[in-house]
Amino acid sequence: MDYYSGYINKLIEQLSRLPGIGAKTAQRLAFHIMSMPAEQAKQLASSITEAKEHVQYCKCCQTLTDSELCPICRDAKRNQKQIMVVEHPQDLAAYEKTGRYEGVYHVLHGAISPMLGIGPDDIRLKELMQRLQGDVDEVIIATNSSLEGETTAMYISKLIKPTGIRVTRIASGVPVGGDLENIDEVTLLRALEGRTEL
Amino acid sequence: MDYYSGYINKLIEQLSRLPGIGAKTAQRLAFHIMSMPAEQAKQLASSITEAKEHVQYCKCCQTLTDSELCPICRDAKRNQKQIMVVEHPQDLAAYEKTGRYEGVYHVLHGAISPMLGIGPDDIRLKELMQRLQGDVDEVIIATNSSLEGETTAMYISKLIKPTGIRVTRIASGVPVGGDLENIDEVTLLRALEGRTEL
Repeated sequence: MDYYSGYINKLIEQLSRLPGIGAKTAQRLAFHIMSMPAEQAKQLASSITEAKEHVQYCKCCQTLTDSELCPICRDAKRNQKQIMVVEHPQDLAAYEKTGRYEGVYHVLHGAISPMLGIGPDDIRLKELMQRLQGDVDEVIIATNSSLEGETTAMYISKLIKPTGIRVTRIASGVPVGGDLENIDEVTLLRALEGRTEL
Repeated sequence: MDYYSGYINKLIEQLSRLPGIGAKTAQRLAFHIMSMPAEQAKQLASSITEAKEHVQYCKCCQTLTDSELCPICRDAKRNQKQIMVVEHPQDLAAYEKTGRYEGVYHVLHGAISPMLGIGPDDIRLKELMQRLQGDVDEVIIATNSSLEGETTAMYISKLIKPTGIRVTRIASGVPVGGDLENIDEVTLLRALEGRTEL
């Protein structure tokens, strides 16, 4: 691959390390960047370095933020006694988009996965347990509905139960607008198990 | 979207401007970048700025390179009298990967497209015509087999014909390993028209 400039090769290589970006896509992106106005490319580069420089973990909920405490943990209008535990900051964002959740969060930055060698000490569980020494009414476990997410939910609930704090798990079932026909069997069984009175 | 840091939002926005990167992918990439070691993120950012700073157009064939003349135009072993005209540097790379083409290239950086308002003056055609005033045996037109590519090929061949230089077009037909069953009709007809004696 010495038919491009070495700089382009380096850019392609760097881009192809990103998740979901293969060699072809990296090449396409690199040439797009080469054809961008210089100012725009500079902004892209600086947005990467600036984000890395300024963003830190919230001291309380561990989400990514640019201040010591994230806006949600600082917000007196949010119910600080209700903590929703999620795997990633994106999950927090997903619930925030609903605009209806009024409690706060705790971001684990991962899930327990014996397969990948990720144990309870590798996610931000210690920080959650510390928070529970304060005044907390309920912990809502909203880890993903995957094997790892379920394992993590189970582990956390066993850990918290003895403290007497209420532990709940978000419901698993048929997504709204979902066609029963196209939904996997495990989800269908979960929806059946979790049926509610009308 | 003020539940992330403003820096993350800016990064997501910048990434989502890249072609083929939607809002979801941009978010995934941004969080991946946030979880990268700082050194690696710095390298990604600097590869963008460095490529923009150092890469320029080859004075002769107009491909992207980091010197005044690209390695192919500088190479005395290449047949400088045989010029393959391509739309993009990626197309040049595709032919270089075959390892069998011994001539040189000319990169148009686009194709004529009346639909998009791209005329002959918007691609690097003037530069090609200038090169033809030197000693050239053959111009091989290897623009894409799309409407724009064909229009461009036609336009260029009409432009060059009067000079007496040989103008050829790469063959269009069934790709090697292709199943006739799955190939579109236009390609099948092209393959028939372009049939050769056995």
